Amino acid sequence: MEVTGTYPELRRDPVTGIWSILAVGRSRRPGAGVDDEQNGEKTCPFCPGNELFTPPEVWAEGRESGEADSPGWKIRVIPNLYPALFPDAGTKGWRRGARRGVPAQGYHEVIIHSPHHRRSLADMDAEEALGLMRAYRSRYRHLKSLATVRQVMIILNHGREAGASLEHPHTQVFAIPMVPRAVRDELREARRMGECPLCRAASEAAEDGRQVAENRSFTAFAPYAARYPYETWFAPRRHGADFEKTSDAELEDMAEIIPTVLRGLRGLLHHPPYNLYLHSAPCDKGEYPYYHWHGVLIPRTVTEGGFELSTGMHINVTSPEEAARRLGETLEGLGYGKRYS
Amino acid sequence: MEVTGTYPELRRDPVTGIWSILAVGRSRRPGAGVDDEQNGEKTCPFCPGNELFTPPEVWAEGRESGEADSPGWKIRVIPNLYPALFPDAGTKGWRRGARRGVPAQGYHEVIIHSPHHRRSLADMDAEEALGLMRAYRSRYRHLKSLATVRQVMIILNHGREAGASLEHPHTQVFAIPMVPRAVRDELREARRMGECPLCRAASEAAEDGRQVAENRSFTAFAPYAARYPYETWFAPRRHGADFEKTSDAELEDMAEIIPTVLRGLRGLLHHPPYNLYLHSAPCDKGEYPYYHWHGVLIPRTVTEGGFELSTGMHINVTSPEEAARRLGETLEGLGYGKRYS
Repeated sequence: MEVTGTYPELRRDPVTGIWSILAVGRSRRPGAGVDDEQNGEKTCPFCPGNELFTPPEVWAEGRESGEADSPGWKIRVIPNLYPALFPDAGTKGWRRGARRGVPAQGYHEVIIHSPHHRRSLADMDAEEALGLMRAYRSRYRHLKSLATVRQVMIILNHGREAGASLEHPHTQVFAIPMVPRAVRDELREARRMGECPLCRAASEAAEDGRQVAENRSFTAFAPYAARYPYETWFAPRRHGADFEKTSDAELEDMAEIIPTVLRGLRGLLHHPPYNLYLHSAPCDKGEYPYYHWHGVLIPRTVTEGGFELSTGMHINVTSPEEAARRLGETLEGLGYGKRYS
Repeated sequence: MEVTGTYPELRRDPVTGIWSILAVGRSRRPGAGVDDEQNGEKTCPFCPGNELFTPPEVWAEGRESGEADSPGWKIRVIPNLYPALFPDAGTKGWRRGARRGVPAQGYHEVIIHSPHHRRSLADMDAEEALGLMRAYRSRYRHLKSLATVRQVMIILNHGREAGASLEHPHTQVFAIPMVPRAVRDELREARRMGECPLCRAASEAAEDGRQVAENRSFTAFAPYAARYPYETWFAPRRHGADFEKTSDAELEDMAEIIPTVLRGLRGLLHHPPYNLYLHSAPCDKGEYPYYHWHGVLIPRTVTEGGFELSTGMHINVTSPEEAARRLGETLEGLGYGKRYS
């Protein structure tokens, strides 16, 4: 098997046990150092009118009339032009000595947040943000239903320093044929504890003054062992393993609390780049009574050195207590924060 | 327990199981955004003549006469001025609900490679590089012998984008009171395989054309599931768990192959920032028959996005086969490479 072949491969390192996608085609994407010509604002492939620069859309909302791949949409979903995962890659794995792998089969989509080139999630009004959360749930449900998918990851990279290769706000959705290490680790911790660690963590955050914001359905808090300065978690108050089962009312509250926290961080950290992702239970027939889906927001304000790479641990120079206090004060100054409680 | 107290804390996240050091004092170090005044070349605290800007040295080599903390040294080891770990932090852990932690007790040293502000490891001649490898082994041995130390990590961050906060070439040594996740994962993989995965990986790399360089005692290769473009591993040919037991002859070969590969990457990737670290067996009474100490070199040429953070997996756009081929050719062009075999 060779990654220079037609499709990328998912390979497992025999020493570390870590899986990596060898996706040579992605080096051609804008911002990856090659073929950068589409990366100016004028030819932004995510702006209305440029629909034909992208693969044909798989979902869109807001177009009252007109054909697919024409302007008029409010949210548009397309396959990634430089995918890390391919629907047709096959599913037959291999093992040659210590070399193990499977084809990088799966789905890699892009949700274009809006027609507006510069409207980030923090800038969106309640209706726009709710539309985006609905798109998240819709694509999650669809991809979860596909036969080979074991995990659906919804990931928003904001800013070049956070890995975004195009400026126009968008979210990536990865539907992968295995349960990734980070989720397996969380499932193991939950099994060990014999109850939901996230329910505990959220209530302990409130006790410790690490809660940042809350509303009817969600709390936002700085985790006890925050890996990064101002790392913030979004936990639905209702315990449940699966983002798919989020109610309409909960989506509304999610669409309020995430942009609220982003606005606080924007003021406090001066428009930081960030990653936002959702962790939900695996898409298999398993029962995960102690798993609790959640969102994680990581401002990318520090450069990690070799300590993190070599240990799998982190050094965080901002205590979560201090981060929560400052972020909470910023939100209060903006008129948000504790008013929800 | 509060991280705003005297000492940093090592905290365990109840949801992910990940440990992080909450080290608020490190935010004051040069390059961390505060108190940057020592960061110019003129007042480089690692240059000769500026010894009193650092904590008192704990080890030095090359000073034929003169007092400690005076010029004349060739290699100098000091405690980190902004440590993540403290000798006097205590060892008593705590558990309050799901909150678990221990004091960040340990040792955090800096090995200043040479008196020369701009002489990186790739620039060093054989004797200088051997002196540095000897210093690595010497500090490793000393720190390993201390009662509370469970792991000694030797980490070279080169370039600001790789997390180096000072330009003057140096290596950090972290002696920590637990076995970090990355090493535990490798121990688990080795136990599962029932033999040494690294011996297998190195021989399979040679079979697959992923070997980059070799000499009497070491091979350098691109791992099968490389996480990063041009990730390169250094494996001693002689199977052994512990860097401490490296012979003088092996140190010589280590001091040849690492700078050689660094020179190749410097040409090929145009002076990339990088992290270099050594993985060795835990410093406890355990027997680790299948563990094989090794070095890992990661050029920092890409910005990781949310995929890596959310999954614990990696997307690598350069295949290790291609990386090894190009790096091998570069080394041959420089007169290195296969001549060792």
